[in-house]
Amino acid sequence: MEIDLSAQEEKAWLFQRAKMFSSKLKDNVIKHVKNVQKIGKDDPRRIIHSLKVGFALTLVSMLYYVRPLYNSFGVTSMWAILTVVVVFEFSVGGTLSKSINRGFATLVAGSLGVGAVHFARFFGHKGEPIVLGILLFLLAAAATFSRFFPKIKQRYDYGALIFILTFSMVAISGYRTDEILVMAYQRLSTILIGGTICIIVSIFVCPVWAGEDLHKMIANNINKLANYLEGFEGEYFPLPKKINSCAPEYKTILTSKSTEDTLANLARWEPGHGRFGLRHPWKQYLEIAGLVRQCAFRFEILNGYVLSDLKAPQDFISKIQEPCSVMSIEAENLRVALKSYSPETEKDLLEIIPGVTMASILIEIVNCVEKISGAVKEFSGLAHFKETLDPKLSAELGQHQLLHKGSVKRVLEGDNEEENNSSPHVLITVHEEQPPTTNEKKVLGAET
Amino acid sequence: MEIDLSAQEEKAWLFQRAKMFSSKLKDNVIKHVKNVQKIGKDDPRRIIHSLKVGFALTLVSMLYYVRPLYNSFGVTSMWAILTVVVVFEFSVGGTLSKSINRGFATLVAGSLGVGAVHFARFFGHKGEPIVLGILLFLLAAAATFSRFFPKIKQRYDYGALIFILTFSMVAISGYRTDEILVMAYQRLSTILIGGTICIIVSIFVCPVWAGEDLHKMIANNINKLANYLEGFEGEYFPLPKKINSCAPEYKTILTSKSTEDTLANLARWEPGHGRFGLRHPWKQYLEIAGLVRQCAFRFEILNGYVLSDLKAPQDFISKIQEPCSVMSIEAENLRVALKSYSPETEKDLLEIIPGVTMASILIEIVNCVEKISGAVKEFSGLAHFKETLDPKLSAELGQHQLLHKGSVKRVLEGDNEEENNSSPHVLITVHEEQPPTTNEKKVLGAET
Repeated sequence: MEIDLSAQEEKAWLFQRAKMFSSKLKDNVIKHVKNVQKIGKDDPRRIIHSLKVGFALTLVSMLYYVRPLYNSFGVTSMWAILTVVVVFEFSVGGTLSKSINRGFATLVAGSLGVGAVHFARFFGHKGEPIVLGILLFLLAAAATFSRFFPKIKQRYDYGALIFILTFSMVAISGYRTDEILVMAYQRLSTILIGGTICIIVSIFVCPVWAGEDLHKMIANNINKLANYLEGFEGEYFPLPKKINSCAPEYKTILTSKSTEDTLANLARWEPGHGRFGLRHPWKQYLEIAGLVRQCAFRFEILNGYVLSDLKAPQDFISKIQEPCSVMSIEAENLRVALKSYSPETEKDLLEIIPGVTMASILIEIVNCVEKISGAVKEFSGLAHFKETLDPKLSAELGQHQLLHKGSVKRVLEGDNEEENNSSPHVLITVHEEQPPTTNEKKVLGAET
Repeated sequence: MEIDLSAQEEKAWLFQRAKMFSSKLKDNVIKHVKNVQKIGKDDPRRIIHSLKVGFALTLVSMLYYVRPLYNSFGVTSMWAILTVVVVFEFSVGGTLSKSINRGFATLVAGSLGVGAVHFARFFGHKGEPIVLGILLFLLAAAATFSRFFPKIKQRYDYGALIFILTFSMVAISGYRTDEILVMAYQRLSTILIGGTICIIVSIFVCPVWAGEDLHKMIANNINKLANYLEGFEGEYFPLPKKINSCAPEYKTILTSKSTEDTLANLARWEPGHGRFGLRHPWKQYLEIAGLVRQCAFRFEILNGYVLSDLKAPQDFISKIQEPCSVMSIEAENLRVALKSYSPETEKDLLEIIPGVTMASILIEIVNCVEKISGAVKEFSGLAHFKETLDPKLSAELGQHQLLHKGSVKRVLEGDNEEENNSSPHVLITVHEEQPPTTNEKKVLGAET
């Protein structure tokens, strides 16, 4: 009887455990599936890229499966597979850069390797490995050192690696095999086949252009600045309210330099496509991005003031609210407002410091925005983006996009006398009504 | 006679050209040699690294040159060469991370590949390539997609690549060769040999530790802040003088995040060495680095004010000079100075805005420095760096190093009553006398 009970208890206990385990497993699986879905949703091109890699690999594996192809390449077709796996990158620029580097480096290093083997044969059977060893050491060291040069590192790093690899292989195996010419030829041709498959799949199946990504990223960064500036009035000037606890969007701009550099680097390898010509001014993007980052630095400080408890007295705030909202480049109104506000004895200077500082940084930001606007305008000219847009509209759009949705207006001295316009004003009206839809912003950003 | 003259003229002309060409060539060669020297001088470890790569490659080439070794491995020893070229990185952490990734991924993918080939054989001679093709497509796509997961990308990106590579090779060549088990074994063992050679050379011949580099970089960044702050008094407060035209050192900190992240990532792969234990708090470095960058953002704004023509009136400047130089954390003196300075009617508020803003940002910087000091202190505890230093001295050193050479002094409430010290003051004295030597600074930085 007792045994029966404990057996039953044990059964119940086991059942309990099994239930707990299965529910835990279920939770974990759901969590992972959600994570996978998120990664895919964040950028659906990732899923497409994965399928493209699978497709290219299956394509190149035909070299093995189809008898006539196998007969002509044999085991070396393995190099084609290796090439596809190693060379296929997310963007067209990445794939092109790696393919070209790999092909070219293999050609050069292969020829040098064959030369080295022939040269070493002069030294007899005993001297040959010694001479080859010395040559290998010297070339490997020199090529490795060359990878530290910034220019080579930036563009030809992979080429230098493949150079060392191919030279070592040809030089070393040349000591044992007499067919190094055949080997070198087979290696080169299979690499070319692999590289070509990668390039074709990369360009013709849903291509991902690094250049377009760079363009969108910069436009998006400018939008982030605009969004923050738009939200700023709402956060500082009304009666103290709860501030958004999530980190403002512009924060990512502060450390986005390396991504921008990489994209600009890859974009240079890409052929002309869509609105991006072969000689598209990619360098200019980095210049604009630098200015945008400068502006974001100022936002970072401004944000500190918004978040801090140090608030200027209410009457001072209300005094500078209007000129801060509608700010001209020389900030004339702001100056006037500050001028007219002579601190009374009881309201001492100390209390208005945060407000004054903030206003002062805002003036700096306007300077910054003006610079960005200038750079974007210069860029539009270089990129021949003007053609599709009325030049005046384009100039306005450039600033629209900076502080978007009617936030910036060029104020000309006189009326439309553009020639006399030696020191243009830029009016920035930060308002909350009619927040533009995301689509609208994207169009504005992409049109630059 | 005439012909003679023209022939002479031609000779002279040719001589001239040859001279020009040779001098141009000489200039170019000298320029390149100087460039090479500079790259080497900037970091002599680059030269050593290049020699190490050459050495490891020559070592692995012995597999080919020495007959008994060649007999046991044959042509597959090529994989050992390939492994050395691809896996040998500048830092120990890089080499270890790549070797371990490569070895482990080869083992897993090799086993899976052998399994896939055996599974596919059930489907007959015609079905085999189709089943293998489908498996290849699915696994390659899945593995490629996994590389988009931030955690995998950060640590196992290379492993995922090698997984795809090995699986494709084993699965595809398994269709043609019956000796895939032998092939898989040889590939794995040669990769292990290559990887082991890399790891041994990397650790035992002049090792470059990513962790040490990270430590030095952060310490150096803190020094850069200190240097700027030290030079600041000299630049803003004396009578207007020529400002250093070269970019201040701290500028590099603004965009050094990606380098720091990479180093911290590699440092995690490294075994304990010197003062860095196995569980060294590498994460803490990134935290400190973030605070240092926050501080550098503020410097960027401050620098804008120093460079701008907007200077506050002289009497105001002289009023805040002393409290700006000797600044306490609550900036009491600065507050008092600002309080006592009531703008007269003719000197309006507008004129002192730049000065007020600057002082205000300086107060922010002091807050920032205090945070860095706290983070460094916390870190020292976690890293067990205290042992070698007197705790009090260490606390002082932490701040010494921040604003170095007697610039910071902890002011205790009462005298040495550390228990009552609920809100410590930090006095920052920016002075120009006795600039510390570079060695001194380095010691301070490295000791943290």
